[in-house]
Amino acid sequence: MAGAGFKPPLKGAFISVEGGDGAGKTTQIEKLADALRGLGHEVVTTREPGGSLGAEAIRQLLVTGDEDRWSPLTEALLMYAARADHLEKTIEPALNRGAVVITDRFADSTMAYQGVAGALGPQTVEALHKLVIGERGPDLTLILDAPIDQTLSRADTSDGEARFENKGDEFQRKVRQGFLDIADAAPRRCAVIDARGGIGEVAARINEIVKARLPHLYS
Amino acid sequence: MAGAGFKPPLKGAFISVEGGDGAGKTTQIEKLADALRGLGHEVVTTREPGGSLGAEAIRQLLVTGDEDRWSPLTEALLMYAARADHLEKTIEPALNRGAVVITDRFADSTMAYQGVAGALGPQTVEALHKLVIGERGPDLTLILDAPIDQTLSRADTSDGEARFENKGDEFQRKVRQGFLDIADAAPRRCAVIDARGGIGEVAARINEIVKARLPHLYS
Repeated sequence: MAGAGFKPPLKGAFISVEGGDGAGKTTQIEKLADALRGLGHEVVTTREPGGSLGAEAIRQLLVTGDEDRWSPLTEALLMYAARADHLEKTIEPALNRGAVVITDRFADSTMAYQGVAGALGPQTVEALHKLVIGERGPDLTLILDAPIDQTLSRADTSDGEARFENKGDEFQRKVRQGFLDIADAAPRRCAVIDARGGIGEVAARINEIVKARLPHLYS
Repeated sequence: MAGAGFKPPLKGAFISVEGGDGAGKTTQIEKLADALRGLGHEVVTTREPGGSLGAEAIRQLLVTGDEDRWSPLTEALLMYAARADHLEKTIEPALNRGAVVITDRFADSTMAYQGVAGALGPQTVEALHKLVIGERGPDLTLILDAPIDQTLSRADTSDGEARFENKGDEFQRKVRQGFLDIADAAPRRCAVIDARGGIGEVAARINEIVKARLPHLYS
């Protein structure tokens, strides 16, 4: 992931939006995409797991079935297989033509869900990340943060894709702490956004951060 | 993989059978399984990619579609996701109850097909192997070897799963050399079997090797 050696791209940018289930990521991504389109950028919005034809097929294996269908290790390998496809088929081609890519979840979700809250442990996720992604990660990561009791009720579990939402409050609390620790460890790449309040308030916080971190998008 | 520190198990064994397409693996595995069952062993025959419910679902993603559906990196990640599931759900439970497990392909196929003949390179496959399999590999690997012009005609391409068989003669030649190099590098785990000749002849060669390498199965 871009960290200490962060160099802002000349045109376009790779932005990931992270956070627990129900933090409002989907809505905020649309607001940010609209704002950046208004500035004349091509904006590609995408999501994980999925975001490309192959990755969406892998997503079907990940989000359906019993909670313990996959071991933590197998789950992480499937996540990274989908991520490699997403990066190669969707994200990198868009970045190469100068677009802004905003993805709903990327590698930090694997670290928070499987590495920290899940049983896999952070070392295996880190090793996998180094092998598969290397330096190809986001320029900016927005972590939408709110107390668990204010987010779970917002998560949509009516779509038959509730394998992760079903894991319970204690799990979601560990996920939240996982994201906050990731932000602490990579402060130049990550920004924690207070996700409480009205949609417009949160959108304004996000715009402010994006303008400060990726000023070339506003010039 | 078991190598220099090889210790034969007290009961049962993990045997992988490798080789190019059409080397006669399926037939020989059945012959070997019958022989070992005749000695009173529980024998579980399985295959990769696949061999467990989850891995078979991943197999469908791997063996269907265009030849370039997946990048070499994504393909290797999917292979190892399937392998982890296969190991955890099928192979290890069988070994734990003292069975002999014979698998049609295991990790050496990923090294030969994706690492050597494919564009991925051996280092990435090795790193992935260390991360996912570690020391959980086969006690004995039988590499069925024959010149390419004598094996390709035997490969079954009528099943809609021809994604690998379609890659051409030059590719298959590299795969064969990949397997021979693996055997050279791990002589205590691997045995190269001349796969030419009648089914009975090849089966006799295999029995001789298994008896020499895993004598506890015959005592």
